[in-house]
This record gives sequence, structure tokens and C-alpha cells, in this order.
Amino acid sequence: PGGVGPMTVAMLMAVRSTCRFNPGLNSLDQYLSHQPQCYIHRLTVHFLFNSNSDIVISRSCVPKPIDRLAREVGLLSDEVELYGKTKAKVQLHIIKRLQKQPDGKYVVVTGITPTPLGEGKSTTTIGLVQALGAHMKLNVFACVRQPSQGPTFGIKGGAAGGGYSQVIPMEEFNLHLTGDIHAITAANNLVAAAIDARIFHESTQSDKALYNRLVPLSGEQRKFSPIQINRLKKLGIEKTDPSALTDEEITRFARLDIDPSSITWQRVLDTNDRFLRKITIGQSPTEKGYTREAQFDITVASEIMAVLALTSSLEDMRQRLAKMVVATSCSGEPITTEDLGVSGALTVLMKDAIKPNLMQTLEGTPVFVHAGPFANIAHGNSSILADKIALRLVGPEGFVVTEAGFGADIGMEKFFNIKCRYSGLRPHVVVLVATVRALKMHGGGPTVTAGMPLPKEYVEENLELLEKGCSNMRKQIENAQHFGVPVVVAVNAFKTDTEAELDLICDMAKAAGAFDAVRCFHWAEGGAGAVALGQAVQRACEAPSNFKFLYDLDLPIADKIRIIAQKIYGADDIQLLPDAQHKVELYTKQGFGSLPICMAKTHLSLSHEADKKGVPRGFILPIRDIRASVGAGFLYPLVGTMPTIPGLPTRPCFYDIDLDPETDQVNGLF
Amino acid sequence: PGGVGPMTVAMLMAVRSTCRFNPGLNSLDQYLSHQPQCYIHRLTVHFLFNSNSDIVISRSCVPKPIDRLAREVGLLSDEVELYGKTKAKVQLHIIKRLQKQPDGKYVVVTGITPTPLGEGKSTTTIGLVQALGAHMKLNVFACVRQPSQGPTFGIKGGAAGGGYSQVIPMEEFNLHLTGDIHAITAANNLVAAAIDARIFHESTQSDKALYNRLVPLSGEQRKFSPIQINRLKKLGIEKTDPSALTDEEITRFARLDIDPSSITWQRVLDTNDRFLRKITIGQSPTEKGYTREAQFDITVASEIMAVLALTSSLEDMRQRLAKMVVATSCSGEPITTEDLGVSGALTVLMKDAIKPNLMQTLEGTPVFVHAGPFANIAHGNSSILADKIALRLVGPEGFVVTEAGFGADIGMEKFFNIKCRYSGLRPHVVVLVATVRALKMHGGGPTVTAGMPLPKEYVEENLELLEKGCSNMRKQIENAQHFGVPVVVAVNAFKTDTEAELDLICDMAKAAGAFDAVRCFHWAEGGAGAVALGQAVQRACEAPSNFKFLYDLDLPIADKIRIIAQKIYGADDIQLLPDAQHKVELYTKQGFGSLPICMAKTHLSLSHEADKKGVPRGFILPIRDIRASVGAGFLYPLVGTMPTIPGLPTRPCFYDIDLDPETDQVNGLF
Repeated sequence: PGGVGPMTVAMLMAVRSTCRFNPGLNSLDQYLSHQPQCYIHRLTVHFLFNSNSDIVISRSCVPKPIDRLAREVGLLSDEVELYGKTKAKVQLHIIKRLQKQPDGKYVVVTGITPTPLGEGKSTTTIGLVQALGAHMKLNVFACVRQPSQGPTFGIKGGAAGGGYSQVIPMEEFNLHLTGDIHAITAANNLVAAAIDARIFHESTQSDKALYNRLVPLSGEQRKFSPIQINRLKKLGIEKTDPSALTDEEITRFARLDIDPSSITWQRVLDTNDRFLRKITIGQSPTEKGYTREAQFDITVASEIMAVLALTSSLEDMRQRLAKMVVATSCSGEPITTEDLGVSGALTVLMKDAIKPNLMQTLEGTPVFVHAGPFANIAHGNSSILADKIALRLVGPEGFVVTEAGFGADIGMEKFFNIKCRYSGLRPHVVVLVATVRALKMHGGGPTVTAGMPLPKEYVEENLELLEKGCSNMRKQIENAQHFGVPVVVAVNAFKTDTEAELDLICDMAKAAGAFDAVRCFHWAEGGAGAVALGQAVQRACEAPSNFKFLYDLDLPIADKIRIIAQKIYGADDIQLLPDAQHKVELYTKQGFGSLPICMAKTHLSLSHEADKKGVPRGFILPIRDIRASVGAGFLYPLVGTMPTIPGLPTRPCFYDIDLDPETDQVNGLF
Repeated sequence: PGGVGPMTVAMLMAVRSTCRFNPGLNSLDQYLSHQPQCYIHRLTVHFLFNSNSDIVISRSCVPKPIDRLAREVGLLSDEVELYGKTKAKVQLHIIKRLQKQPDGKYVVVTGITPTPLGEGKSTTTIGLVQALGAHMKLNVFACVRQPSQGPTFGIKGGAAGGGYSQVIPMEEFNLHLTGDIHAITAANNLVAAAIDARIFHESTQSDKALYNRLVPLSGEQRKFSPIQINRLKKLGIEKTDPSALTDEEITRFARLDIDPSSITWQRVLDTNDRFLRKITIGQSPTEKGYTREAQFDITVASEIMAVLALTSSLEDMRQRLAKMVVATSCSGEPITTEDLGVSGALTVLMKDAIKPNLMQTLEGTPVFVHAGPFANIAHGNSSILADKIALRLVGPEGFVVTEAGFGADIGMEKFFNIKCRYSGLRPHVVVLVATVRALKMHGGGPTVTAGMPLPKEYVEENLELLEKGCSNMRKQIENAQHFGVPVVVAVNAFKTDTEAELDLICDMAKAAGAFDAVRCFHWAEGGAGAVALGQAVQRACEAPSNFKFLYDLDLPIADKIRIIAQKIYGADDIQLLPDAQHKVELYTKQGFGSLPICMAKTHLSLSHEADKKGVPRGFILPIRDIRASVGAGFLYPLVGTMPTIPGLPTRPCFYDIDLDPETDQVNGLF
């Protein structure tokens, strides 16, 4: 550990043999250019007694220069793009260099059905990697989602973990990071502008005029662009000479004939702007009366975010971005971004966002922060690319800990059935986070509301409520077991929890079939408070595992939905309402029937009704409608109405946020 | 030049004495940490015969690593934040280190009244610095604006210069850069969301309820946040204990009472989305019927962009961002972002954007790319901070070349009266770019339209049209002379221009009082083609200069507008229409009367009518309305209607843009 001076070849080879992160270097030249500092330098944490503010704790620890961490984890300098001193992007060509490296152990962190306050999945993810890395001296990477900036200024605040288990610097994590979400905003809205502009231009021009503008004379000749050739192929027109098209072919090529009422592509902003939930656009006289109703979603709800999370390479991303369906033509054909001619531009806008972002925990262990799709209308998991690169970097004895959004019925189910299906990766262990607070709520405790003091049931011992509420944990353990993967329950301890309460949960978890169940104190103690969890996870990775998907893709759409509803949610059956029934037929006809399912359901209950706690029984899950994210690669049935852009409260977080002009420090983030 | 190995102290001192960029280092320790490579390494340019595509030329030149350029220009490593391999941000604390350094020569590039195609101001700016730096071996920096991403995918294409005078890599320059514009989008829209949410919450709550939410109990006590204390002070309430306010004070504090019809703050996107020019927001049932008409502008039209361009420090930016007026209360008080409580969050969102971005030209000379405010409703100039830092870095014998948007009647007038007023910097030379094409248009040539072939008058010799059109150049030279600064005319030569035509312009320019007038061939030849211009600029910097502003700030608003209209545009008088008259009274009453004036006028004519070419006479300039950018620090009279968000044409640029998956290269940008 510590800085290294000039090294001899012998020293280098010696270092190589003890190098804990295996960089897969295949020549001494690479090694020389690499200048490895092969041990992860542990940051000194100063435990503060007078503050529990996340940003104060975050600031109390000086992050190491990110290029140093990059060397420590075995990245070569030409694989790293620095973004300031504390963030870096990793170039995708590393995948080729590491292609023969064996993967590490793959751990997914999920939770029981949470209270609206959240039960500490992110904090546990970070605490666990701090334990494995800084305390148990194992190679480890956390892979987490980039949070939306909207809630940072609204109600929820930041999302970098908490207490002494955080990604630092938390203000970088919670704000622009390296601009990936901004790139998605730009790409998403270019599609939206292209849709309405195209409808406008088609409605005001003849087929011939449209064609002449789309394929203009340049000098003496006219030429199709490659993107236009792609559209011709899709239409079955095997011609490359613009003058050879028949009138009928010209019409088919030039006129997308989008049915405005079928548009599913929305504009996005990464801002909590409730007044954009429903709007009317096109009211300027320059748009000649072509108004329509539209809406804005929060950027992380964009399909492009889901594409980013599920893609496996630049070329794959280009294809997914081209396949995104934005509307249906009046004759029932799906209209894609490739038809709009915008697919290449989207790829160009996303060419940097595809590279995972390297940051560090409070204790100096590495973290990839990459992609953060919505957990309801999308699948709520960080990127496949970050997981894949991290698994190679840690090597066969190392660990990659990734987090799945919401409870196990949602985030974990989608992690397995969607993310693992596309990645081909197989998890070794599920860590299920449980809290006394949430389990008491499931046992019948009073309503928990964000911003309000907790009722006394939650701050005093109450074994009865707790025991009753463990039903939810039992069900979520069972849900993980459907996939054949061992479960370790992490009981995220709070100051007010009693010994008896913590013991009770661990006993009930083991009785329900968990591989192990341990208490964790990482919020207060950092990695030291999660060593028991780390050891349990390490043991569980050696346990037999027999991974299987919950459903076959070839099943009819309704059957796939039913399997999830019955096996995971405990529903008696599903009910397809008319819009959903229509979409089943449409998507099956359009060839999208074999996509996996991404349920858009409340995360506050196993059922579709947020106030039904514990393990609801005897219900029929209503499917209001179904949408398709064809580029990302899933269908998303809507169970109830999903809010897709939050609002600002009377006193948003931003009242406390400011920059100290003396120190340049950010105050008030939490 | 070239790489350096370990250096002895003696070697370092030797280097120091020959170091051309003066980094103002004041200790050997700093010098050692600095590892200077004190000569600017000139990049080898390969002149291509088969291509005139800007992106192909841009790619033909391999940029040097940006950390190397940073060292070459005398930046210390802890003053630089790398953003990948070709972009870096410069930290503002460098200003303190360089505070005793004398400034270099300050050159502003402007132009005659252009055709809609533009006459090559950016290209001339880059060509000139390539000449001064790579050929004349002088210290030089170009300071240019960051372009909006909207037009990159719409009609206009990129803005990195052109031919062999470009900022490279042009795809980085034209796309996200380091995210500054995205940060502005985020900050701007947070204000917009805060305005509508606040109106909504005020309309649905009693004064008491509002106050209790704004100043909530936290534990046992309630506390004002510092931002709320600022509002109290503004209201003249000198209390810090929330329980001490009277009912009347509570009402005044809690209720902003915004008049929705007075809102001047618009939402923004960096996308050419014409359907957002006029919209109705708030139509979701959750907003309970509080709908209103609103609009989106392009991000570069945001006042926050103008603030970024005009600020002088982080603290100054915090103050400007707090002073921005978004609306008027029902009782006529200006409502600021500080009143909304959002000013600190804006500063936090903009804390990285305030740092200038370092890039390089095709020939390896340094460029700051920083801020790009609209040139009509804002002042159209790059940032003061970039100019200031560059002037210190080049030292007293060096040159900083900055560009002012649109023609000299707009960009240059605002450069002097607004930017130089706030910066305190005094320019040495004005470079006025003229083209044969534009001057023929002013002489009565046929209309020039983007995307259409040029009429023959423009591609064949026509001395008569040209001579007549020189009237416009003469007037713009006179406009520069109003400010007491010498003018060098740069005739940006095109392939079709004849010797006689180029000679004629130079003769007429000198006759009109220009210090010098020279032909330039930097588009085709790079810096080598602008050496004559560089020499003329160098000589002109030694000429006597007697800078003065055009008007005093203390004059009444209408008088300031009249002075600009008469002296610069050649109008007989101005006419304040009723809205403008009302605003003169309102702003005078609100205390904004002494701000400088930022005219929002067409750039295609000296008058307010775009089709009046040459030097229009005998017109009255109509002022339709006046708006205030109080944070940025100017009033902007609206002369006619300004489009504030462009649209996409039938065949946008994006049809040609794609990423080559083999090489990761961007194709189709131009």
C-alpha cells in the first residue's frame, strides 16, 4: 500500500503474484504502463459524535484520487477517463482484455416490502462491500444505480447510502455525476421533437414534396442515408437508387402516418415538475393548430435509461435504440426511432453514457454507479455492463454486490427474469434486507408516513407485531427460492431496536429457509458493522445453487403475467381489462409477444393495493393496460396508475441546500 | 518540446527562463509539481485533397492529451480537472495565484451584418489564434462560446469553426462537452417547477398552514433556513425566531402571491422542439385546475446562461442567481429565486459549470470554451471568467481572441457595453470579419437562403454590387470606432472570390478608417492562411486606443435605448409601444433602471427589418416590450418577435449522424 516509485521488472513480477485485483494483463509492457498499486488503500474513517448528517460524514472522509483507485482495481490508464478528481469512466474495450478472466461471485441485494421510508437496501449494499473489502480484505465491487436529481431537490434527498456506509463524495453522486442522465434527457427529447415535427411536416406536404425533402438533390445526385436504407429494408424495398422507387413505394417510404393517439413516447426532465404531468403542446400559431395532449416523465423513466441498463455493447445499444417503438401507424405498424431517422444520433448522444462510472465508498472500496431505470415502468436495476466488468475485475475469489430496486417481489423478480436473462449472469446469493420497523408495519402497526414522527409501536419493543409481520419476510424468502438461489437475511438494525426483536427476526428467517440471517450495524459503524453479513454471504456463495427462471419467454403474454402474479405476489388470478386485452393482441401480432414481463405495480404491498400489508391473499390482480419497451426489451403491464413525474412539496429540500463560498462545500444535502 | 524525463533543479530553472506561457509560479516546489513542458507542441495537420467535411478534417488530426496542453499553458495539476482525454475544466482558484500577473492583449472578433449562412467569425477566431500561436509563436488563447446542441441535430450543424480552423475534437465540442448546458437546463427547470408548485401550494393552503410547512418543527424547535432569513431581511423583518413573527409578518413571509400572468421565467430544453413554443401546463387532475399557458425556450436562452457568462466568481454567481426576477407579485413586487428558496440549489447545480473548459485547435493551440448565451435576448458573448484567466495565462506579450455573436451592431456593442462593463477589461483591437458574399448582398444582390444554391452574382466577379455593399462594412467600422478601439478588417476569402474583389474590400476598409484590412485563407490553409491577419492584429495592439462606453448607466432607460438605436443602427428615433412604456415605468420603480441595455433585434439588418440590407436610413426603431434579466444584469428591449426555440425541418441533420461501431467514430456531424 502507499505510493510506488520506479519499479524493476523483478519487483513488478513480485507485485503481480500478490496482486489482489487481477487485471488480466497479458504482457509486461502492459504491466509497466499500468503501474499497479495492487492493494486497495483503506480510507481512515473518523467517527463523529455530534452529527448524523450524511453529507457531514461524507465530507469527513477525504476520497483518494480516483486515478489511484483505478490503478488499485487493475484498470490500465488508457481504459480510464477521469472526470475531475473523484469520478472516472471506464472504457468498454476493457471487456475484450478481460474476456478470458473468470467471473467473481455475484450477489444481489433486495428487501422485504418496505415502508415509504425505505429499509436501507443501498446502505446495506455499501456496508456489505465495505465489510468484504476494507475489513475482510477480499476483492469487491458495489454496482449501484445513479439516482435521479429530481428527488434530491424535492422530498427524498440523496441516495448514496447513509451514515457510515456511503458512496463519496455524495454531492457528486447525487448531482450531475458524469452527465449520463442528462445525455438521456437530450436523447429522449430529440425523439419526442422528431415525432411531432414529422407528423407536422407530413400533414402539411404532399408525398412527392416530402420525398424530395427527405432525399434531397446534393450536387447532381440524390442518395439515401444509411438510416433510410434500413427503413427501406424494413418495408421490403430492396432498392438503393432514390429515382427507382415507384410512386407507391415513395408514399410508403416517406409517410410514417403516425396515429397521434397511439404515441407512447413522452418527453422527460430530471426535475420534479408536477405541472408537466399533463400538458397540451403545439399551441403556437407556427404549428398551425396541430395541438395534442402530452406529458413529461422524469428522465429515469425514459426507455433509453432502461436500454442503457440492459445493453451489452455499443453495437447492441445502437440496435436497441433503433428498435424502440414510439407509436403505431394508422395501419397498425409499429413506428420505431429508426423509421424517424434518429437512431444514429441517439447512439452518438449516448456514446459516453454507456461507460460505467467509477467512484468509491467511505472506506475506499470501488463502486460502479451506472444507470438507474425506474423500478415500476422499468426494471429498476443498475447496468449489466457495470456488473460484467466488475465481475471480471474482482476475479474468481472476489465479490460483486449489486442492488435491485424496491422489494424482492419487484426488483429481484425483474433482476432474475429480465436482467439476468439478458446478461447471462447467474447470481450466487440473494441478500434480503429486513428491518424491525417494516416488519412491525406488516404485522399491523400504524401507518408510516415520510416526514412525520414514527408512532410509538416502532420505537418501543413489540414482539407480537414483529412476529406477525415476519410473514412478509417469509414470503419474500420464498420468492427468492423460486429462483433456486440461497438467501441471506440482513437485519438492518436501528437504535431503537431491542436484542429480542433482532433475535426474533433472525430466528424466523432461518426457520423460513434462509441460508443465514444476521444483524448489521453498518449505518453506525461502517464496514465493521457488516462483517458478520459479509461472512454469511461468503459462506452462502459456497452453498449449492440451482438457478432457474420463473417463466419461459415463449408462453403467451397473459400466462407470463399470471405466473408472476400467482407465484410472487400470491394472487389468485389476474384480470386483463379491455385496454390490456387489446394490447396483448396488438403486441402478439406485432411480434413482441415473447418479450419478458416488467410489472408496474406498487412496491408498498405484495398486492396491487399499497395499504394491504403482510401477505395479502385472495385477490385478483387487475391489469389496466400494457406498454412495450421494445428497445429495452420488455412489456410492462400497468397495475393501477403509476406516477411518472414527482412534484415538489411546500418546503422542498432545496431550502437547505447551498454552497459555502469560503470552502466551496455543498451544504444541506442529506 | 517533446516529453520530459526527470529534471534537475538547474534544468528547471533554465526551462523557467525560456517558458513562454508564464504560469506565475512562486516557488520551486510548485514548479516541481508542475512538470512544465513549456512550449506549445504544434500538431501536424494533414491537408486532405478529397474531403472538405469538417468532421473528416477534425478526425485527421490527433489531439494531444489535454493534460499535456494544460501543462504547456502553465496550469498546475491541482488547477485542472480532466474530463476524458480531450477536455478539462480549470478551477477558479487559479485567479488568486495569477492575481499579480499582467494581462495580455485582448482582441474581439466581430463581423459585418451577415447573410443567413454566417460569414465565418468562429472560423476566423480559430484561424487567427492558430496563426498567432502555431506560426508566429506567440502565447495565445481563443475564448469561444459553447454551442447549443439543438441545431447540431437540426439545420445548422456544428459550430467548432470550419475547414482547417477548428476546435477539436469537434464532436466533443458540439455535443455534451462537460455538461455545462445540461447543468443550466437542470437549474433553470428547477426554478420553473418551484414557481408553479409554489403558486399551487399557496392557492390550496391557509397562511398558517403554509408557514407551518415552510418552517416546520424539527425535534422540539423550528428554525429559519439561511435562505429564509434572506427573504425576511428583504421584507424588512429583522427577526430570526420563527415564533416571534406577527400574523401580518407570517403572511408577508409565507405568501409570495405571484401574479401568474406576470411570470417571465420559462422552462428550457436544449432540443429543437417547436411543439413546445406554446403549451398549456397543469392539466392533470392532481393540479386541481391550476392550468396556465407557458412555453419552453432553448437552454442557451436561459438567464442562467447569461449569468454564467457574466459572473466573476462563485460568490458573485451565487448573488446573481439569487437576484433573478421570475415574476411580479400581485402588489407589484419583483419575486426572485431567493424568495422561492431555490438560489442555493441553483449555485450547487452550477458549481462545476462555472469552471472554463479547456480544448485545443487543429494546430494544438489552447481554447477556452465557456458559456454560450443567446445573442438576441441575451448578450451573445462567451464568459468573462475564461477571458480573464486566459489574459493572465498568456502574459503581457500574449493574445486572447474572443468572439462576439452576430454582427458588430449587436454582439460587439453588447461586448463593450455589457461584458466589458462588468469585467472591467478593455479591448485592444476589434477584428471585423467581412466576406465578398455578404457585401454583395448588402449591395443589392439576390436573397441568400440556407440550403439553397447561391445565385450567380455570388460566385462570379461583380465589383459594382460589392462596392455598393461596402456601405455596411463602413458603418460597422464606424460602430467600432464609437468605442475608441482600432479595427482590423479580416476578409474571409472564398474559392470563388477574385483578386479584384478582395482588393476592393481592403481598399474600402482602409479608406473607411480601418487600421488595416487583410485577406485570410485560414479555412483552406489553417493558421498559415491567417498570418497576415495575425501580424496586422499585433501591430494594431500597439496603436493608440481610447476606450469609452457608448452610454452612461445613469441615463433613463429610453435614452440608453435611443443612443444605441441612433448611433449604432442609424435610426432616426425609437418608439416605445405601450407594453414597453409600461415596463420602463415598472423597472424604474423596481430599481432596475440603471442596468445596461441588451437589444433583442434581428442580426440580418442594421435596422429591425431583416430584409433591409446595406445601411438602412430614415427608420424609427419600434420597441415592442422590455424584459429584465436582473441576475445577469441587463434589460432587453424586444424589437419585433424573437424565436426562442427552433424547430426541426423535414430532414434534420440527424439523418446523417451515426456512430461507427468498429471505430467508435462519430459520422455525419459537420
